[in-house]
Amino acid sequence: MIDYKKLAGKNIADLIPYQPGKPIKELERELGIKKAVKLASNENPLGIPEKAKQAIIENLHEMNRYPLGDAYYLREKLAEKLGVKKNELIFGTGSNEIIELLIRTFVKNGETVLSYAPSFSVYGIIAQAAGSRCDWVKMKEGFEMDFEGLKNAVTDKTRIVFLANPNNPTGTYFSEDLLVDFLESVRDDIIVALDEAYIEYVDAGDYPDSLKLLKKYKNLVIMRTFSKAYGLAAFRVGYAIGDAEGIDMLNRVRQPFNVNMLAQIAATAALDDTDFLRRSIKTNREGKIYLYKEFNNLGLKYIPTQANFILVNVGDGKRVFDELLKEGVIVRYLGPGLAEYVRVSIGTESENNFFIEKLKKVLGK
Amino acid sequence: MIDYKKLAGKNIADLIPYQPGKPIKELERELGIKKAVKLASNENPLGIPEKAKQAIIENLHEMNRYPLGDAYYLREKLAEKLGVKKNELIFGTGSNEIIELLIRTFVKNGETVLSYAPSFSVYGIIAQAAGSRCDWVKMKEGFEMDFEGLKNAVTDKTRIVFLANPNNPTGTYFSEDLLVDFLESVRDDIIVALDEAYIEYVDAGDYPDSLKLLKKYKNLVIMRTFSKAYGLAAFRVGYAIGDAEGIDMLNRVRQPFNVNMLAQIAATAALDDTDFLRRSIKTNREGKIYLYKEFNNLGLKYIPTQANFILVNVGDGKRVFDELLKEGVIVRYLGPGLAEYVRVSIGTESENNFFIEKLKKVLGK
Repeated sequence: MIDYKKLAGKNIADLIPYQPGKPIKELERELGIKKAVKLASNENPLGIPEKAKQAIIENLHEMNRYPLGDAYYLREKLAEKLGVKKNELIFGTGSNEIIELLIRTFVKNGETVLSYAPSFSVYGIIAQAAGSRCDWVKMKEGFEMDFEGLKNAVTDKTRIVFLANPNNPTGTYFSEDLLVDFLESVRDDIIVALDEAYIEYVDAGDYPDSLKLLKKYKNLVIMRTFSKAYGLAAFRVGYAIGDAEGIDMLNRVRQPFNVNMLAQIAATAALDDTDFLRRSIKTNREGKIYLYKEFNNLGLKYIPTQANFILVNVGDGKRVFDELLKEGVIVRYLGPGLAEYVRVSIGTESENNFFIEKLKKVLGK
Repeated sequence: MIDYKKLAGKNIADLIPYQPGKPIKELERELGIKKAVKLASNENPLGIPEKAKQAIIENLHEMNRYPLGDAYYLREKLAEKLGVKKNELIFGTGSNEIIELLIRTFVKNGETVLSYAPSFSVYGIIAQAAGSRCDWVKMKEGFEMDFEGLKNAVTDKTRIVFLANPNNPTGTYFSEDLLVDFLESVRDDIIVALDEAYIEYVDAGDYPDSLKLLKKYKNLVIMRTFSKAYGLAAFRVGYAIGDAEGIDMLNRVRQPFNVNMLAQIAATAALDDTDFLRRSIKTNREGKIYLYKEFNNLGLKYIPTQANFILVNVGDGKRVFDELLKEGVIVRYLGPGLAEYVRVSIGTESENNFFIEKLKKVLGK
């Protein structure tokens, strides 16, 4: 009799499979509520760009055809926008697939990856699935990145360092000076993978100009996504920018039709919808100011954010998460390591108001 | 200086990256033609199902949200349609991702996969990218599957046998008797991955009832897709049906949001569009009869097909491919191993007529 668990091996059998949440409609039915407000997944609350919508509808009839294997039009437009060469870009089914390609292509037997914690858990999950592991360096007080700690944690076996900036779930960021210092001090055959999923929301003046650094540091790889400020989470399109030879290697491991055609069409159109992007950033900035003010009024400590979510100390994260859910507000509880916190995505004005109203109720204020 | 090629290793550096064809629009511009007929990728010539179109348009405004990580509604509907349990299903970015998940999850250091040739080259490419290899057993005269050859080629290291049925690019198939005999004779810890991408087009009476066999053979995994008869190639949604524990292992390696939400919505609606499926099969059957007749008239030998494409012997495949291209018909030339052939996808009536007209011209008949 076949033993699939044994064949998969300990690394995979030990992985805790992702537990998907119920669809919102099912949740609403169970909880007996009308319209739940979802502030759990750092999605863009404004919907999808109008130009993306139009482009999809116009092209639907051709969707019996396979996608363009090289994301031809999207590649052309994005390369021009970023000022990079077309062969310095690779697209994936969200940033997740880019992370996966990096690990599968470059992390070989016995080599490891490194990041700070708390950060994007997917780095560790993918490393484990690939028979490797992620070493995590604890952040400093206030969830500041500990670059000295990272440097000390690098070993002969370290192959990739994942640096989410701004970081998820903390919303904190690091400056260009710190990044340059880190790039200068690590071995130049270590890939420094900069995960900039939330870059469009950043307003800090000393945030790194990573595209500029790319020219000097061949071991730097930048990851970005259309899932956040561009409003296209359902479509799954992330990308990386890096040295052409490194991208070429990733491209050999990538499946040719990995990025579905509607995603390519939507992302290409979204790049032209500057009005949508502007409104997304404005909505986020205004929501951030409002939530900061309300948290201050409630005496709640929060972590200043450069992204589209806020980590807020509510005392008992699990209880507040559960109680908010019953009130029709879905936020994110992040587990025992961040037991006092919930992470709330910044929504529209009315969503933020509703969240604060329910938060007050749950906290008895 | 970082050496990405060295870091990727010989297996990956030696992979020949997929060379995507130009977008049809660019090709038309280059060739100075108006409307090229594409019969190259075994796509459904009828477009996408009307019900899928409607469902997408209705749900577009919500596409700022992440996909359902477990394909909740698609899973429910498909499990019911197939009469399998929900935990016996896994969805992927096309069948390609299912093949990739199978190899990444179950093929460990030194283990190999096996298939017959010519077949779907992706089995070999993915195996190589994963540091493994695919052994290929040559088909018999007339592209019949050589099961005795396969049995003899199994080694201690063989972990997965990929059996495309009907096979691509030959269109040939094998019967239930041959499959059962093979399942009975191989080690029961070898995964037999049955790739049924074209099953909806099959009309052979002795074709295997693979879902029935699944109950007896725990090492059998069935792969199917929405890219062909369901008309959804652009969306990228394939799936596997197998033993729950095997599926559970694949699920641990799978990225939670691998199948984009529009694909889930389109596939769910397509399952209800029985009229589209019926028309697709009818169009294919009629096209097949027409093309057989025309090939006979032209004195061309072809391989009888159970799929939506025909392998036809045109003498000099490369020349005919090139000449057809200039005439605005895109077929597939399959390389020196099948130098005398081109593979033509069965199109609509007018596409088939156009192809035959141009084929006659190219062959000087």
